[in-house]
Amino acid sequence: MKVLVTGFDPFGGESINPAWEAVKCIRNEIAGAEIVTMQIPTVVGRSIERIHEKMKELQPDMVISVGQAGGRFGVTPERVAINITDARIPDNEGNQPIDEPVFADGDAAYFSNLPVKAMVQAIKDAGYPSSLSNSAGTYICNHVMYGILYYIHKEFPDVRGGFIHVPYAASQAVNKPNTPSMAIADITAALEAAIEAAVRNTCDIRAVGGEIH
Amino acid sequence: MKVLVTGFDPFGGESINPAWEAVKCIRNEIAGAEIVTMQIPTVVGRSIERIHEKMKELQPDMVISVGQAGGRFGVTPERVAINITDARIPDNEGNQPIDEPVFADGDAAYFSNLPVKAMVQAIKDAGYPSSLSNSAGTYICNHVMYGILYYIHKEFPDVRGGFIHVPYAASQAVNKPNTPSMAIADITAALEAAIEAAVRNTCDIRAVGGEIH
Amino acid sequence: MKVLVTGFDPFGGESINPAWEAVKCIRNEIAGAEIVTMQIPTVVGRSIERIHEKMKELQPDMVISVGQAGGRFGVTPERVAINITDARIPDNEGNQPIDEPVFADGDAAYFSNLPVKAMVQAIKDAGYPSSLSNSAGTYICNHVMYGILYYIHKEFPDVRGGFIHVPYAASQAVNKPNTPSMAIADITAALEAAIEAAVRNTCDIRAVGGEIH
Amino acid sequence: MKVLVTGFDPFGGESINPAWEAVKCIRNEIAGAEIVTMQIPTVVGRSIERIHEKMKELQPDMVISVGQAGGRFGVTPERVAINITDARIPDNEGNQPIDEPVFADGDAAYFSNLPVKAMVQAIKDAGYPSSLSNSAGTYICNHVMYGILYYIHKEFPDVRGGFIHVPYAASQAVNKPNTPSMAIADITAALEAAIEAAVRNTCDIRAVGGEIH
Repeated sequence: MKVLVTGFDPFGGESINPAWEAVKCIRNEIAGAEIVTMQIPTVVGRSIERIHEKMKELQPDMVISVGQAGGRFGVTPERVAINITDARIPDNEGNQPIDEPVFADGDAAYFSNLPVKAMVQAIKDAGYPSSLSNSAGTYICNHVMYGILYYIHKEFPDVRGGFIHVPYAASQAVNKPNTPSMAIADITAALEAAIEAAVRNTCDIRAVGGEIH
Repeated sequence: MKVLVTGFDPFGGESINPAWEAVKCIRNEIAGAEIVTMQIPTVVGRSIERIHEKMKELQPDMVISVGQAGGRFGVTPERVAINITDARIPDNEGNQPIDEPVFADGDAAYFSNLPVKAMVQAIKDAGYPSSLSNSAGTYICNHVMYGILYYIHKEFPDVRGGFIHVPYAASQAVNKPNTPSMAIADITAALEAAIEAAVRNTCDIRAVGGEIH
Repeated sequence: MKVLVTGFDPFGGESINPAWEAVKCIRNEIAGAEIVTMQIPTVVGRSIERIHEKMKELQPDMVISVGQAGGRFGVTPERVAINITDARIPDNEGNQPIDEPVFADGDAAYFSNLPVKAMVQAIKDAGYPSSLSNSAGTYICNHVMYGILYYIHKEFPDVRGGFIHVPYAASQAVNKPNTPSMAIADITAALEAAIEAAVRNTCDIRAVGGEIH
Repeated sequence: MKVLVTGFDPFGGESINPAWEAVKCIRNEIAGAEIVTMQIPTVVGRSIERIHEKMKELQPDMVISVGQAGGRFGVTPERVAINITDARIPDNEGNQPIDEPVFADGDAAYFSNLPVKAMVQAIKDAGYPSSLSNSAGTYICNHVMYGILYYIHKEFPDVRGGFIHVPYAASQAVNKPNTPSMAIADITAALEAAIEAAVRNTCDIRAVGGEIH
């Protein structure tokens, strides 16, 4: 099995992106699966096109994109991506689309076909905070997650894919009062646990994991 | 114009539901539109069926459901509902569906066709905290929002509909440390501002209101 | 019995101060006690001198100063004031003392001699969030609380005094994401409940109300 | 120079105490100073007596006690200890004093004579979140900090002492939603940075570090 794992470059004035810092340290074999990591730009369109090209070239069995969610307390697999891009801040090339569809011919949303609850459980079993998220936002993270699932739906029906949000690295929180963070090494370990769960579980577990709101 | 506004009964051990407490005090005419309020049960299936029946009987031009989102800091219109019910706690009749579709023949998600950004702006202009939410959760609130939009899509194509989440009432937060709340009268005023914006704006405003994650 | 209740003027770029907005609406008689309200400037030194002069003139039996604590979730009586002024921002006349004693000849700290736990309980019984705070900060609020207790200690041994912090008003939180707030009318009602408890209880109640940290 | 650093044993139902987990890994020499670590019990009275005995035996130049402050986002040196013990939960031997002085003949409060702002700056320079805290709570942490400063005041006038609160370890936050945490190794590194700053700075730095409330 081949697993493509991507992480974004820094954006929003940050000097690092904990997603890429953690992804680049993931070991290159997990539970028998080959792990291929790739940095992608925090840019509307180009981000997902880089992944699309890599999917065609590498033919991975699974695609997991990882992004920074400043303010979150743990490592949070995403359940669903919605067909909208609504940017709070310009991307790294200055684009700031407001309320535009990711793909005009796509569905309103796509659910991840990764075993997201098994991934949450595996992260927690490894000793790190985690919960299932029901919103990947409306910025490049949701954009890329939607794009991966769109291409899976249109071109790669046997591939599984999804997205994981990670908190700020500790160093990013130094001048942000009351902001949670994690050690990069812990984020890497949490991602490895999640990937292992995704590799080992074809179907998701049945577990209480919803949110009241 | 006729606007149907619903609020849930109490659930999760609470003695009141701020949604209904606020909804029942909404004035019966806003910007020329007639407002009809209705309490609905916090019950999977029955909640949306009660609304469905009322839509057939009343033939409203707009349907807005209001629900409690304990932990939120302001009054938050919802952008989208997803086709899943994943209950963290049993509903008021003991049902606790896990990862089931709301309607098996529905789309993966429906976007609200209310002018949600204009509603957020109107609430803020009235002096109350508000932001656009991208997740109505996976419990009865999302369930009802999805159901309203499903029936609009299938049976009432000219009707506009959506959902607004409100914080705990102050009295509910008395024994919940570090939990935000609002006065019921302020929630009512915020809802009236939102409804007025929905009545007056056929199309949404173009405004930066997305979330990075 | 005469009770002097003070509230600060706006500071830190805010157009209102919820402390004064709420204090000025307190009714002028509570449980048989006469309530005298006074606005004081958010200024090092002058704030406490204004109160000192008023104490000499009015000869109140009780002095309660009320201040804004942006970020708090409820109305929080303070347990103790410490002998330091360490200003994060300049006051309304541009003073910004760093690590200076409030009064060089004062004790390291003074505990309020108000029945603070009875006041917390009364606020909660009235339906508003409240808890006992163990730090009034190091800005003008702590400065004034320390000053009141210093003058009680030195000149008015029969007077009781203390401080109550209040959250942002709802209107102040409009452009502050994830910031708790309260309705001004609710803050007034909570203060009235606290004052009534202070008037009625010479000694504090015995209640679990400490903080682990 | 000899530095005594203490960490508490687990309490409140936790299986570990991040304070001790981090303290026991501190290297035994920092900036030329010898570091002696000691576990102390989370017990009223006994905790401070264990430190008192060790101070007499070891004759350290500096005493730093470290404790868990679940809910904090960073490593937070404490400015001041107050003369009260008000326990929210029973200690590890079942004691739960309410509103009792730590030492009846002690001052109302003692300020730490460690260079607390230099320590905060050093932790941040090392890449970890930190801020100066103005309340060590009213439980065993404040109790021990007060006791150390009381004994310094009464018996060891040349000794410097204080307290540092640390967040939950990541593993403790696994089942606590929306709770910040740090990696144990990062807490250790932050404590080492703080100790180094305390060893190197006889006087504190002049820096803006106060709190508005």
